[in-house]
Amino acid sequence: MTAQDQPLTLSGERFTAVYHLSGAPTAAQASRRAQDICLEQTVEFPPDLIPSAAIRDQIVGQVASLEPLGADRWEAVIRYPLEVAGRELTQLVNCLFGNISIKPGIRLTRFDLGESLARLYRGPRFGQAGLRALLGVQDRPLLCTAIKPMGLNPRELADLAYRLALGGIDLIKDDHGLTDQSFCPFDERVSRCTAAVARANRETGGRARYLPNVTAPATEIVRRARLAQGCGAGGLLFCPGLAGLDAMRTLADDDALALPILSHPAFQGSFTLNPDGGLTHGALYGQLNRLAGADATIFPSYGGRFAFTAQECRDIVDATTQPMGALQSIFPVPAGGMGLKWVPELVRFYGRDCCLLIGGDLHAQGADLTANCRGFLAAVRTACAG
Amino acid sequence: MTAQDQPLTLSGERFTAVYHLSGAPTAAQASRRAQDICLEQTVEFPPDLIPSAAIRDQIVGQVASLEPLGADRWEAVIRYPLEVAGRELTQLVNCLFGNISIKPGIRLTRFDLGESLARLYRGPRFGQAGLRALLGVQDRPLLCTAIKPMGLNPRELADLAYRLALGGIDLIKDDHGLTDQSFCPFDERVSRCTAAVARANRETGGRARYLPNVTAPATEIVRRARLAQGCGAGGLLFCPGLAGLDAMRTLADDDALALPILSHPAFQGSFTLNPDGGLTHGALYGQLNRLAGADATIFPSYGGRFAFTAQECRDIVDATTQPMGALQSIFPVPAGGMGLKWVPELVRFYGRDCCLLIGGDLHAQGADLTANCRGFLAAVRTACAG
Repeated sequence: MTAQDQPLTLSGERFTAVYHLSGAPTAAQASRRAQDICLEQTVEFPPDLIPSAAIRDQIVGQVASLEPLGADRWEAVIRYPLEVAGRELTQLVNCLFGNISIKPGIRLTRFDLGESLARLYRGPRFGQAGLRALLGVQDRPLLCTAIKPMGLNPRELADLAYRLALGGIDLIKDDHGLTDQSFCPFDERVSRCTAAVARANRETGGRARYLPNVTAPATEIVRRARLAQGCGAGGLLFCPGLAGLDAMRTLADDDALALPILSHPAFQGSFTLNPDGGLTHGALYGQLNRLAGADATIFPSYGGRFAFTAQECRDIVDATTQPMGALQSIFPVPAGGMGLKWVPELVRFYGRDCCLLIGGDLHAQGADLTANCRGFLAAVRTACAG
Repeated sequence: MTAQDQPLTLSGERFTAVYHLSGAPTAAQASRRAQDICLEQTVEFPPDLIPSAAIRDQIVGQVASLEPLGADRWEAVIRYPLEVAGRELTQLVNCLFGNISIKPGIRLTRFDLGESLARLYRGPRFGQAGLRALLGVQDRPLLCTAIKPMGLNPRELADLAYRLALGGIDLIKDDHGLTDQSFCPFDERVSRCTAAVARANRETGGRARYLPNVTAPATEIVRRARLAQGCGAGGLLFCPGLAGLDAMRTLADDDALALPILSHPAFQGSFTLNPDGGLTHGALYGQLNRLAGADATIFPSYGGRFAFTAQECRDIVDATTQPMGALQSIFPVPAGGMGLKWVPELVRFYGRDCCLLIGGDLHAQGADLTANCRGFLAAVRTACAG
C-alpha cells in the first residue's frame, strides 16, 4: 500500500455538520464520541491503521468545536472534506448521517454546505417566489388540500377537485396514499382531475393547480411525472422517505418537467421522533427536503393529530428560509389535522409565507365543499388583515 | 359524491401488520390507538365523514387482535386490503408505516403479506442457495470484507482486492462510502478491482467476487450497475436507506443484470434505535431488505462498535429465513467492528448460514493481508468443525 502514483491532493475545503451528543457525562467522553464520528463517517477504519498521513489529514473529519449543552449533552461541530461528499446527494447524506444513524446518542441538528458544495445543488426550481408567481398569490398564505378519501374512483375525485378549485384552493394534491391502485388508476385519475381543475379555472379565472402523487417504483416515477405534465398537471406530490431524496432531486432538476414539487413526510417520522438520535425537524423537513428540490415541505403542525411542538415547527420554518448557498426559500406546509378554526393561530405563528393544508376538516364544515373552501380563503384573508 | 358508476368491489383479501403500541395504560386507549392506525394508514379521513359504507368496509384497516404486553404496552394486529398496497413496494411501505412513522409509540414489529401479495415480489434473485452455488461454498459461513480506507486510489484498492481474494475472502465489497469521488472514480475503481479479483481467482482457482457500491443518484444507479456487470463484477453493494428500497428492487429484478445484491444499513439506523417507535430490526433489516431483493443483509452485530443486542440480531436472522411467500432465504451479514477472535462466538451464534464481514480487524493482524485472510478462513473452518 505504498504506491503513491496518484498522491492524494484535495482542495482542503470542508463543509460543516452540527451534532448533538447525549449520554456523555465528561468532556473526555464527548471528545472520544466526536472523534469517533470523524472516523466512522469517512474512513471507517481503525485510526492507527490508516495507511498514510495524507488520508489522516485530508479525508478524516475534523472536530471544529465541542461545547457542553448541560447535563451529559454536547454540541459537536464537525467538518468534512468537500470531496468526501463527492457530487452526489446520496453520498452527501451518507457522510452527514449514514453509519452514525445506527449509533445511539447522536442527532444531526443542521449542516452548512458552504458555497462550493451548495453550488452543486439546484435545489427548488420555484421556491416561494416562483410558486407565488405561478399562482398569482402575493399577499397571503397559499391554500392547500388533498382529494380524499382513498376508495373514491377517479370520477369522484375529479368532482372533488373541481369543487375545491371552484372554492379558491390554490394547490389541490392527491392524498399521498393514492398511487396506482386498481380502484383508482394513476393515469385515469390524473387525466380526470387535471381536466376538472382546468374547467374550474376557466369558470373562475383562477389558477388552481392539481398535484398528483408520483411516489412510485423507481422506474415509474419519471413516466408518471411526464404523463402528469402531458395532461397539464400543475405540480407533483412526492414522498422522499418512500422513494428517495435523490429521486425527488431528479424530478426537480428535470428541465423538461419544470413543475413545482410538494414533499410529503411519509415514512420519515422515525428520523425526528427520538430527541437523542436521528435528525432535527429543521435538518430533515427543512434543509434536506429543500436541498433535494422541494418547493414546499409538508409537516405535521403542532396542535394537530401528530405530536410536533411549536418549537420543532419553528425549526422547520427557519430551515426553509435560512441562507443555504444560492438555494431559494421554500414554503413550510403545516398540516396533519389542522382545522378551519385554527386559521388565525396558524397565520399568527407561521406568518404569510406559508402554505396552509387543511384536509378532512374542510369536509366537516357542511355539505357544500365549495362554500367551505371560500370560508377557508376568507378566514385566511381575515387573519392576514388582522 | 353519490355517483357509484364504478362501485368499489375489492377482493376482500387482506394482509397483516403487527404493531407494538406503547404509552396506552388502558385497553380503551389502546383500542382507540389501533383504530386510529386503521384510518391513518388508509383513508386518512374523519371516520364520520367517510362518504360510503363501501369505503368503510373495504378500504379502512381492521383490528384483528389487540393483546396486552404488560405495563402500558399492547400488540395490535391490523389487516389492510391487498388493493390498498397496490402492486408497488413504495405504497406497500407507505401502508405499513408511512404516516404513523410520525406518531409516537407505534413500532412495526413484523408483517405477513400472504400468498397473493407476496407473489407480486420476486425478492432475492439468488438468496442463500443461489449465492452458495455461485461461490461454491456449501459447508461454512461466507467470508466478506471491504476495500478501505477511503482516500486510497483505484490502483491501491485493486491491490487490496487482489490480496483479499488471494487469501480466500468470498465477497470483497467497496466500503460503502466509496462512490464516485474525484480521488477514486467509480469507473476506474470498478475496472481495476474487477480485474484484480479475476487475476487472483486465476491464480487460486477460487471464485471470489468483487461487489462495487452502486448507491448513487437515481439516474446513475442502473448505469453504474451495468458498467460493473460489463467489467465482470460479481455483485452489487447498495444502501437502500440512501437511495431507496425500490431502487434496490429494480436492480434485483433486472434480468439483464442478474447480480447478487448485498444491502448496507447506512441511514437506516434511526428506524430501529427507539424501542417505542420505528421498525424492529427483523422487520427492517430482515423482511423489508429481503422483500426488496437483497441476497444478503449487512447489520451491526452485538459485540461490535454499534449497540444492537443479541436478541435484536436474532430477530434479523429469523426474518431472513422465516417463510415469506415463495421468497428465498437470504444471508444475515453480521458486521460493524467484528474481530477475528470473535469468529468462534459468531459461528456459535449465527451458525453456518451467515456471511461474516470483518473489516479493519483483518488489517490489524499483521502486515501480510493475504495471510490474515487465510487466518480468517481457517478460524471459520475450525469453528464449524468444533
